[in-house]
Amino acid sequence: MAEGPSGGSRFFGPSDRHLLGIQGMHPSRIEPILDLAESYVLMNRSRKTPRDLLRGRTIINLFFEDSTRTRTSFELAGKRLGADVVNMSVAQSSVNKGETLLDTAATLNAMRTDLLVVRHAQSGAPALLAQKVDASVINAGDGTHEHPTQALLDALTIRRHLGRIEGLTVAICGDVAHSRVARSNIHLLTSMACRVRVVGPPTLVPRSLASLGVEVHHRMEDGLHDVDVVMMLRLQRERMSGGLVPSAREYFRFYGLDRRRLELAKPGALVMHPGPMNRGVEIDSQIADSDQSVIREQVEMGVAVRMAVLDLLSRSKRSSRS
Amino acid sequence: MAEGPSGGSRFFGPSDRHLLGIQGMHPSRIEPILDLAESYVLMNRSRKTPRDLLRGRTIINLFFEDSTRTRTSFELAGKRLGADVVNMSVAQSSVNKGETLLDTAATLNAMRTDLLVVRHAQSGAPALLAQKVDASVINAGDGTHEHPTQALLDALTIRRHLGRIEGLTVAICGDVAHSRVARSNIHLLTSMACRVRVVGPPTLVPRSLASLGVEVHHRMEDGLHDVDVVMMLRLQRERMSGGLVPSAREYFRFYGLDRRRLELAKPGALVMHPGPMNRGVEIDSQIADSDQSVIREQVEMGVAVRMAVLDLLSRSKRSSRS
Amino acid sequence: MAEGPSGGSRFFGPSDRHLLGIQGMHPSRIEPILDLAESYVLMNRSRKTPRDLLRGRTIINLFFEDSTRTRTSFELAGKRLGADVVNMSVAQSSVNKGETLLDTAATLNAMRTDLLVVRHAQSGAPALLAQKVDASVINAGDGTHEHPTQALLDALTIRRHLGRIEGLTVAICGDVAHSRVARSNIHLLTSMACRVRVVGPPTLVPRSLASLGVEVHHRMEDGLHDVDVVMMLRLQRERMSGGLVPSAREYFRFYGLDRRRLELAKPGALVMHPGPMNRGVEIDSQIADSDQSVIREQVEMGVAVRMAVLDLLSRSKRSSRS
Repeated sequence: MAEGPSGGSRFFGPSDRHLLGIQGMHPSRIEPILDLAESYVLMNRSRKTPRDLLRGRTIINLFFEDSTRTRTSFELAGKRLGADVVNMSVAQSSVNKGETLLDTAATLNAMRTDLLVVRHAQSGAPALLAQKVDASVINAGDGTHEHPTQALLDALTIRRHLGRIEGLTVAICGDVAHSRVARSNIHLLTSMACRVRVVGPPTLVPRSLASLGVEVHHRMEDGLHDVDVVMMLRLQRERMSGGLVPSAREYFRFYGLDRRRLELAKPGALVMHPGPMNRGVEIDSQIADSDQSVIREQVEMGVAVRMAVLDLLSRSKRSSRS
Repeated sequence: MAEGPSGGSRFFGPSDRHLLGIQGMHPSRIEPILDLAESYVLMNRSRKTPRDLLRGRTIINLFFEDSTRTRTSFELAGKRLGADVVNMSVAQSSVNKGETLLDTAATLNAMRTDLLVVRHAQSGAPALLAQKVDASVINAGDGTHEHPTQALLDALTIRRHLGRIEGLTVAICGDVAHSRVARSNIHLLTSMACRVRVVGPPTLVPRSLASLGVEVHHRMEDGLHDVDVVMMLRLQRERMSGGLVPSAREYFRFYGLDRRRLELAKPGALVMHPGPMNRGVEIDSQIADSDQSVIREQVEMGVAVRMAVLDLLSRSKRSSRS
Repeated sequence: MAEGPSGGSRFFGPSDRHLLGIQGMHPSRIEPILDLAESYVLMNRSRKTPRDLLRGRTIINLFFEDSTRTRTSFELAGKRLGADVVNMSVAQSSVNKGETLLDTAATLNAMRTDLLVVRHAQSGAPALLAQKVDASVINAGDGTHEHPTQALLDALTIRRHLGRIEGLTVAICGDVAHSRVARSNIHLLTSMACRVRVVGPPTLVPRSLASLGVEVHHRMEDGLHDVDVVMMLRLQRERMSGGLVPSAREYFRFYGLDRRRLELAKPGALVMHPGPMNRGVEIDSQIADSDQSVIREQVEMGVAVRMAVLDLLSRSKRSSRS
């Protein structure tokens, strides 16, 4: 079995068989993932990836929610490492979801799945599966809980541009309350000694978020002042209930990122967005395409980070088997 | 071209180019499939499968009905043998289905398909395709007719646990009339000298089934007495017509498998189910998870049996080409 | 990196990075594609394709419209050359389609896509994407504009049967106005000095089509007289508006291809159809299955032509990278 590009060291111990979330993850475990992902960035660019690394391994993309972009990113990551990748899209029509999830876990075990990528509308579903499957589970987004590979790819993007993550000031703006992306980023950035602000209307950014170790702001003008990084979130109106849904125009007027607001941040501050964007709703189109935007690079880092995670999670299994 | 794990012998002659059903299949042709599948069980567990075996061969999964589990099982089986596997899901909206099916066959020939896995709502559709395609056809379930790989995987599971198939007493319980799984199992088990009982309400288990060489019972208490194996079927209420549809609660009371009823069977009798289960409808949840249940192992045997069938069917083509 | 079967010559120069349409393509660029495709026909038949050719390359099938046949053809073509092939089916529900398309392009770049196969309901969408992506774009059908690989596979089919393309008389019959297949074929055949007739009712074959360099006929009896090739088109009633939709029976009576009409063509004239056919609507079922029909061979040529195009488009990138 070929080794990964940076040798045989083990970044995840036996107790770290899964990647379910960023919460509680020490910087000493985050940095090596980013380091390994860096090498995969270069390999992807030159089309030279270690295609024997996961040969004979089975990756199942188990998506209970549609997400073409994330599914494609994981599928490419797995194929470029030589794994057998199978997509399973599951409609959530079952009555006894809890039971079905456990029966699904049993099925995946029986099929000798090595790596299981799970997206689910319910927070905690990947963790529940992880208790029942022999495979390593990667949470690809669960309810409003976490989306850890998104936070890792965001961190890699920041580090490549600003040279470090520690000590930066980052504003996360928009629908923080409903966002698993925000939650994973908050955990990662606070763990790495960033100053994190969350910015948005009180309905989407409640005061209670302060318990996560962040500053809560309700005005963009306050929140963006002197930040190194502006992370915009997608306004997910499909997740909001009736009376609270803002109009796109109104939302943009108060909370959209435009040139004027961006000038409050540090010169050269990074603009980020997990995609897909609602241009003209949460972000001005020109800002999205400006020199300060690293939105496209985030997608590239996504494939590399997922390759690094697949690589690392499969290592502990490789060494435990041999 | 690498040979399969058990060498170059040919279990299917030129007239056995397809696997359309179990009916009429002699035990001397069933046993070698199970033997070969045994070796694939071990290879799957060690992640060491002969990935050159089907290199350059094209497998098309042609599913006119949804079935994530069966499709995934065949997809994994094909990929682990190195084939190019393509999924084609076809909506059955066409008006002239018969004509369309033949045009589909012509298309698949033109694309140089080697192995064609077909699921279709109409009984006989795979056999019709088999007359028109150059590929070897594997029936993955057609109407109420047959689902041969399910019967083979069930047989393998029984053989591994009880050491033999011949002479056992097996009860198949539930919606036998609508079940292609039941039909394939009846053919296989009677061919291998089992005593087979079918058990269920008269609407789902009509007396006429006796013509298949089975005993018909309408009370679980009669049917389960002293059996070696209890095969539960999925209650497919979507296939039943209005007045005949039982409530889940009522069905479970009379025909669900619970601890009390299972005690009528031989000590250590196997409990089987083709999945996905309706827990609390046809089977008590604790029984499904008990030591006597081999439901999860059935799924594992499914991948192995499908690898064996793909291997064997491709052999006759390999030898006829060279 | 292995070279393609006919060596390292470059048929597409730097300005020919994409295959967006046939219009304006010189015969000197068409012939080499057909020549290379010929060799892939043989390789497909013997199951010996150069599986290292596109190893490490990423092909994305980006389908905004469903097309199981075309998608499968490209998927097989890519896999037989060893590429990583990923299917992305995208529902066209987005409000700002234009913006979304460009953001999709950015995402595909970031994922390091090498070859992008695009089908879209809007004419020009692949060309728009081609301006924004680093990948080579292959138009797999856009609106009523072009479907270039269909014209190439039709040309290959004709050349194999009649020995040449130049100087033939070809009738294209049916819904020419709405057909991208017709448009690509008209461009290819007129470029190769064929005499092209378009035949159908005035609503589907307006006089204005004469500007494309074709003869316009409204009676099959006039249009089919002495032709070498009859290309029937699929009647796409879903694309027509209310009052203009002909009944199937009425359409067949005036414009269906039957034995009597085919006898007007040259003896042994080829009958072609891009599929899927509406038997009994645009074509008599017996004609579709007759000795003169090459409809099934068209499908086979489709896979070979797509392999040739993938091969050629990736060559310029290979040489520009090394």
